[in-house]
Amino acid sequence: MSESQASSSPPMLSAAQAPAEGAPAARPRPKGQQTKAHIVDVALHMATHHGLESLSIGGLAEATGMSKSGVFAHFGSREELQISVVREYHRRFRQEVFAPALQAPRGLPRLRAMFAHWMQRTTVELDSGCIYISGAVEFSARAGAVRQALMHSFGAWHDALRRAIEQAQAEGHLSAHADSHQVLFEIHGLILALHYDVRFLQRPESVPRAWTGFENILRRYGAGG
Amino acid sequence: MSESQASSSPPMLSAAQAPAEGAPAARPRPKGQQTKAHIVDVALHMATHHGLESLSIGGLAEATGMSKSGVFAHFGSREELQISVVREYHRRFRQEVFAPALQAPRGLPRLRAMFAHWMQRTTVELDSGCIYISGAVEFSARAGAVRQALMHSFGAWHDALRRAIEQAQAEGHLSAHADSHQVLFEIHGLILALHYDVRFLQRPESVPRAWTGFENILRRYGAGG
Repeated sequence: MSESQASSSPPMLSAAQAPAEGAPAARPRPKGQQTKAHIVDVALHMATHHGLESLSIGGLAEATGMSKSGVFAHFGSREELQISVVREYHRRFRQEVFAPALQAPRGLPRLRAMFAHWMQRTTVELDSGCIYISGAVEFSARAGAVRQALMHSFGAWHDALRRAIEQAQAEGHLSAHADSHQVLFEIHGLILALHYDVRFLQRPESVPRAWTGFENILRRYGAGG
Repeated sequence: MSESQASSSPPMLSAAQAPAEGAPAARPRPKGQQTKAHIVDVALHMATHHGLESLSIGGLAEATGMSKSGVFAHFGSREELQISVVREYHRRFRQEVFAPALQAPRGLPRLRAMFAHWMQRTTVELDSGCIYISGAVEFSARAGAVRQALMHSFGAWHDALRRAIEQAQAEGHLSAHADSHQVLFEIHGLILALHYDVRFLQRPESVPRAWTGFENILRRYGAGG
């Protein structure tokens, strides 16, 4: 999330109480849930800027103007707070990247839409950071529930992309002989390189390179001949 | 550096006093320089495991059994300590990845050797971490001398790779029409995806995927036909 997005999106849904995708949040939620959702929203903003490991019950209390025991009552532990942030990040990622792509027809159009929305989000995130990338660095050497939540969350996105690749094969848009894991590996590399170049090396000229790389991969695996 | 490597490599050279590549360190160095090199060695070990931002004068004093003022006397600031670590990492990276590849003939053999050594190092680092990757996450949102040192250090490696690609074009091993920045972008993505998969997602089966991706890129840009 960019700073402007994070502050403009109403903190109405916490990860745990989110309705099924697309269903409207019809009734106003109890105050306790709204407060929890607000804390998660502030925590997500902090985590995308400074990492999940920057979060603490005390820091959140200060940022939200609540007491430490007030924040603690909603989560019970720092770990639970971090996991709530991972879930909320996942919910927004799904909403912005995955869900809109389902409007596109199965096969190559949907795979292209997923990549386009992912690119879009990677570009939007350039002011803050992607917790799938920063979290991977923070938690690679740590076991535990936060790492598991991150792996699970990223894994769901990984699987959705692989399904889209396999559907493109089933539709005859990509070669049936291609290894979908291999295609996914190469596509993921482009997003990571884009993030690295634009965010760290400050080379915005790499945005079209990610697109060229993507079209190269599709051609190699049978798209358009 | 893996844990075993870090502890087995003699901490003989600090970044500042390193002789030209390949030249033997003939004379024993003054004690002060040895001490400084030892501190940098310990700090590098900590940084590859926990990030450059985990370093502090106090933490290093504790880890080396020295006084805080003793450590401070060698660096003058935490920032200077971090920069010394970046330089030492760069020196070792150059020694393990770049220098051996220069033994291979110009063109595709040298480019392949660079990728092979890079892959090798990425695999060795899986127990600890690569500060070009963790540092990019830590310093993307920060300005300052440490970020500059990291960008400069990674940039030198980036440039060396691009030169190798352009030499492969000059030798006729890769198409003269290929954009070397594009080729480099795609190759870098493979290493980042490899690091992500093996280190965070714990999928060692991605190692051959990086190789397949590399050969795909070479073929696309004209190698072997």
